[in-house]
Amino acid sequence: MKELYHPAKKEFQLERVILFSDAVFAIAITLLIIDIKVPDLSGTAITDASFWEAFEPVIPKILSFLFSFAMIAMYWSKHHQLFGFVTRYSPRLLFLNFAFLLGIVIMPYTTAVYSEYSEGMYALLLLPFLFYTLNIVLCSVSLYFLWRYISNPKNQISDFEFERPFLKAVMRRNMILPFVFTLSLLASWMFHSPYGRFVLFTLPLFFRLTRTRPVKTLQKNQP
Amino acid sequence: MKELYHPAKKEFQLERVILFSDAVFAIAITLLIIDIKVPDLSGTAITDASFWEAFEPVIPKILSFLFSFAMIAMYWSKHHQLFGFVTRYSPRLLFLNFAFLLGIVIMPYTTAVYSEYSEGMYALLLLPFLFYTLNIVLCSVSLYFLWRYISNPKNQISDFEFERPFLKAVMRRNMILPFVFTLSLLASWMFHSPYGRFVLFTLPLFFRLTRTRPVKTLQKNQP
Amino acid sequence: MKELYHPAKKEFQLERVILFSDAVFAIAITLLIIDIKVPDLSGTAITDASFWEAFEPVIPKILSFLFSFAMIAMYWSKHHQLFGFVTRYSPRLLFLNFAFLLGIVIMPYTTAVYSEYSEGMYALLLLPFLFYTLNIVLCSVSLYFLWRYISNPKNQISDFEFERPFLKAVMRRNMILPFVFTLSLLASWMFHSPYGRFVLFTLPLFFRLTRTRPVKTLQKNQP
Amino acid sequence: MKELYHPAKKEFQLERVILFSDAVFAIAITLLIIDIKVPDLSGTAITDASFWEAFEPVIPKILSFLFSFAMIAMYWSKHHQLFGFVTRYSPRLLFLNFAFLLGIVIMPYTTAVYSEYSEGMYALLLLPFLFYTLNIVLCSVSLYFLWRYISNPKNQISDFEFERPFLKAVMRRNMILPFVFTLSLLASWMFHSPYGRFVLFTLPLFFRLTRTRPVKTLQKNQP
Repeated sequence: MKELYHPAKKEFQLERVILFSDAVFAIAITLLIIDIKVPDLSGTAITDASFWEAFEPVIPKILSFLFSFAMIAMYWSKHHQLFGFVTRYSPRLLFLNFAFLLGIVIMPYTTAVYSEYSEGMYALLLLPFLFYTLNIVLCSVSLYFLWRYISNPKNQISDFEFERPFLKAVMRRNMILPFVFTLSLLASWMFHSPYGRFVLFTLPLFFRLTRTRPVKTLQKNQP
Repeated sequence: MKELYHPAKKEFQLERVILFSDAVFAIAITLLIIDIKVPDLSGTAITDASFWEAFEPVIPKILSFLFSFAMIAMYWSKHHQLFGFVTRYSPRLLFLNFAFLLGIVIMPYTTAVYSEYSEGMYALLLLPFLFYTLNIVLCSVSLYFLWRYISNPKNQISDFEFERPFLKAVMRRNMILPFVFTLSLLASWMFHSPYGRFVLFTLPLFFRLTRTRPVKTLQKNQP
Repeated sequence: MKELYHPAKKEFQLERVILFSDAVFAIAITLLIIDIKVPDLSGTAITDASFWEAFEPVIPKILSFLFSFAMIAMYWSKHHQLFGFVTRYSPRLLFLNFAFLLGIVIMPYTTAVYSEYSEGMYALLLLPFLFYTLNIVLCSVSLYFLWRYISNPKNQISDFEFERPFLKAVMRRNMILPFVFTLSLLASWMFHSPYGRFVLFTLPLFFRLTRTRPVKTLQKNQP
Repeated sequence: MKELYHPAKKEFQLERVILFSDAVFAIAITLLIIDIKVPDLSGTAITDASFWEAFEPVIPKILSFLFSFAMIAMYWSKHHQLFGFVTRYSPRLLFLNFAFLLGIVIMPYTTAVYSEYSEGMYALLLLPFLFYTLNIVLCSVSLYFLWRYISNPKNQISDFEFERPFLKAVMRRNMILPFVFTLSLLASWMFHSPYGRFVLFTLPLFFRLTRTRPVKTLQKNQP
């Protein structure tokens, strides 16, 4: 009883971990839309103007949906990129992967909470934004630990020899999202203003600045 | 650090993109049914006649469900056909694919909005029909860009040499849906009448007319 | 431009059809549970007795859930068995497969309609039972056409040479479900009684009687 | 008509069983979140304090969600581990697998029932806890029978020769969950107190105690 699996089976066992994760991603990204209600026209005139009026309160929900769609799409891409290096798995890898998937699974909920209370007077509330930020932190931090675990040659998860500057660049980039979200939350809290959320608009800038050579290499070599 | 993946892994990485897309398709096509309510018999006589009466307002929703089921099935087939040519992927391909999947994911919602307001006086509303048309435009236009990107030999996505007339035929055919939907919307708007939607019945005609030799070759060679 | 796919790709294209179908099956079988409501205890004493009382109206829904779970599981097994013979695909195969999947996708809805109106006075209604029967007919008839299409050597879908008695036995067996359901519906209609549904209890008998040698061979050779 | 499948197809047929199961797992684990409602702030002051107040009744639901997420993640890992040994399948294996999947599919429902009635006076109810316990029993007992069926060389499901002490250790470990849940239920019933549920906190202890050498070997050899 030395080897439990012959090589072909081992490969499929790993693929199963990945395809299961993909199914979770796919369901979470599709469930985001379930929260968005059809505008209610009962009791109003049947005109396109009144339809639009009934649709207006739905718009912030649609914007939140689009944002979370982009978030899950991005986390999927990162997961896809990272697991391209994985050639073996371990109970610990499964555990870290499930922690990451937990963050993906709860995103439809934190998105629903945030988008319900993101407009008018409700935009002054900090807790819904805190929930969403914690969700982003959970995803990014568990992704960080996945990178650390997979890139460590001692764990024998990957056959790839990661260079220090490459790893550093990728992991730093990984922390942009939780960092900027936390900053934005702090700004909202300090200035008692929903405009603190505008800090999120610096995200593209941060992503551009950290697009150093190792990151470009990673993206180019992907195919 | 020259090559990030050995060939076997590369193939699986591409398969993952495709199987993830499939899961999104599968969930969207199944979620379409969630919007359809069980007819409510409370407060009526318990007869098959009154059941039918309670069921009647559900019928337009079922027709919309069937139409959107056919739409997603058709888009899946086109995606399936197109990715049969793909042998490599790139960040840009992932991006275009996500834009396309966004169109698939929101279809249960635009279907729900349209089917809620497609009968009686509501049929005069243009906005619900506009939403559905925009959804079709999003799907077809992103599919168009996917074709363009994949067929361009510079991008090294496909090993297949596409002939000009073939590409032209496929892409023209691809634009039938958004074209006829827009036409139908315009007719509804110009004549202030829900009968503008009848323009959609010309769809089979358009598909028949554009079924030129290259398209037939594609369909025949598929297996 | 003679062959559009090289062999490895062709195999994956077929696998994609099957795995997409599997995802639809998996979602439909899991969505069945969504319709079942948590018993409502508001306004009653907080005792296990009153919990049970609130739970009792849920029981017919749970029985319907279990029945439809078994139905989808069985259709999945048949689909799994049938596609074990498939080595190529065609647009027509995709079409027949989508017709079959349509039957699977609507099952959560017909189950919800039927289980809502299956008890007490509602059990006299024929329409909810007719809907469920039509669903079974759709699934079984499209499965029948899939068998016919796949087993026909002209279509070049399968490399397997099917023997006449084998095909006949499998297809006859395939028709048991719609046959017994229709019988049960007719009995309910003729005797104006919900007891017509008891005809369904003859199903195991029919399955036993048609378990002829070819069917046993199929089941034994499966692994 | 001796062999129904050529080897390559046989392997894919088995993979299909497993990937279908994975999709069911993925949907069940993601549907858990659907039951959790967005806190309702209508009629209260718009402050973070009142948001928290509205959120408080949601907390037990979130704890239940986390617990069931961990349960499904654990059952997935066990299924993943077990099917790593499987090289052939049979109608009986499919049946046992569906029994197991039934337990996974109903978990979002039993979780919803339990979490709805787990607080305050409702915590005295035994039936919701009984439902959840029965769910755990269904999952673990069908997993037990899967192990027994797969490890039996007569069934020719696995090529692996299982050693007696190994099998015994794994199966004993498998029974911890239903055992401790039943114990906890009995304690709740005998002492008419919700504190009986605290017996569940002994779970980590039991898992630690049964982590004998064969189990460690299994976990280490996994990659």
